[in-house]
Amino acid sequence: MITKNELKKIKSLKLKKNRKKFLLFVAEGEKNIKEFINSEIQFYKIYSTVKLDWVNSTLISENNMKRLTFLRNPSKVLAVLKLPVFKNSHKNRVILCLDNVSDPGNLGTIIRLCDWYGINTILCSSETVDCFNPKVVQASMGSLSRVNCIYCDIEKKLKNSNRLIYGAVIEKGASIYSEKMEDNSILVIGNESKGISNNILKIINNKISIPKVTKNKGPESLNAASAASIIISNFFVS
Amino acid sequence: MITKNELKKIKSLKLKKNRKKFLLFVAEGEKNIKEFINSEIQFYKIYSTVKLDWVNSTLISENNMKRLTFLRNPSKVLAVLKLPVFKNSHKNRVILCLDNVSDPGNLGTIIRLCDWYGINTILCSSETVDCFNPKVVQASMGSLSRVNCIYCDIEKKLKNSNRLIYGAVIEKGASIYSEKMEDNSILVIGNESKGISNNILKIINNKISIPKVTKNKGPESLNAASAASIIISNFFVS
Repeated sequence: MITKNELKKIKSLKLKKNRKKFLLFVAEGEKNIKEFINSEIQFYKIYSTVKLDWVNSTLISENNMKRLTFLRNPSKVLAVLKLPVFKNSHKNRVILCLDNVSDPGNLGTIIRLCDWYGINTILCSSETVDCFNPKVVQASMGSLSRVNCIYCDIEKKLKNSNRLIYGAVIEKGASIYSEKMEDNSILVIGNESKGISNNILKIINNKISIPKVTKNKGPESLNAASAASIIISNFFVS
Repeated sequence: MITKNELKKIKSLKLKKNRKKFLLFVAEGEKNIKEFINSEIQFYKIYSTVKLDWVNSTLISENNMKRLTFLRNPSKVLAVLKLPVFKNSHKNRVILCLDNVSDPGNLGTIIRLCDWYGINTILCSSETVDCFNPKVVQASMGSLSRVNCIYCDIEKKLKNSNRLIYGAVIEKGASIYSEKMEDNSILVIGNESKGISNNILKIINNKISIPKVTKNKGPESLNAASAASIIISNFFVS
């Protein structure tokens, strides 16, 4: 059973302002939700349309699940979780810094990528899409349970850091294939259409680029998550 | 002006069966459409809500554009293009082969990636999402004008090929960081949740993996486009 008020409250979590108000966010799908079970992120409530053997949940009708879901095809289970307070870690070989990445799918993919490579801290500019946006939670496939997305004044953070700062630029950076990526560094990835902001570009020590094979033809840029994947992988080439 | 019948026909191009019936597909947005101008793909019709200086278009009202568009936020211009007949090229250093990649965003990102690295041929299994799906066209950002997506019986193609065949597997493949990727090869990327099908796995000479740094923790897999980006980049490490 779910009350009308609960339903309304959960649906309202689509918007960032309501997630901040209630300090809650939504994750959907068995695989995704299971990842949060052993994490530091706490559950507030779990709803499902069938009895589950891996967790206690409140049974609701398929119709109510359709009302609740943020997905086109609702899954059998939806969890409401408490917004965690993410902590900065200094152990990372490389820290990722996102300067206004705006596409939820890209952020989700990047969180999953960081989790794969053991990078547990992402610094996000305040304009970067919220990591608790339902589409981000979906694309990150549970990796949000292990990767800390810290929204902050990245200009200040970068200025105060003693790490080497790499920035991905489309042209005129050193080729990632000739540059040896140093540990104890930060990698900045910019906005999908505008790239890295001017004030941030000024702080960057090492501009790097993924060389385009099709010189004067080909696309203007790579997808931001695609570029992040290629560059982060390069830190791990031995 | 646009007639009711035209409007209906264009809207119907959301579905593959109608794209096959009319031999047409839709591209939206100035940047995306401009890429097709000097390509072999021919225009059927261009609609816009404002007069454009780079192309002749049929002016329509914003309301009609809202009816036509497949995007949440319609752009000022929408083109209807003729379905091309894609040709196989043998010049590629590496050819990509997609075994049932189903997410349109992933396919679009992969087409853009191939374009960046000068790979102009992608072999797609018949179950792979259609490259003229509006979401694929959108995510590929015009790269469809330069990359040939050939839908075929990939099992047959791979069996008849004399290229070296790499297949991306989650575990138990040779590390991409220790393997030197050979030219004149094919790289197979599998379905987002199921990976490469069993019948295709049997044909693969070289199974390769992206080593997971977070051994027993971390995500089960990387996003398919993310993995494709990392592995294709590795072919270009000198």
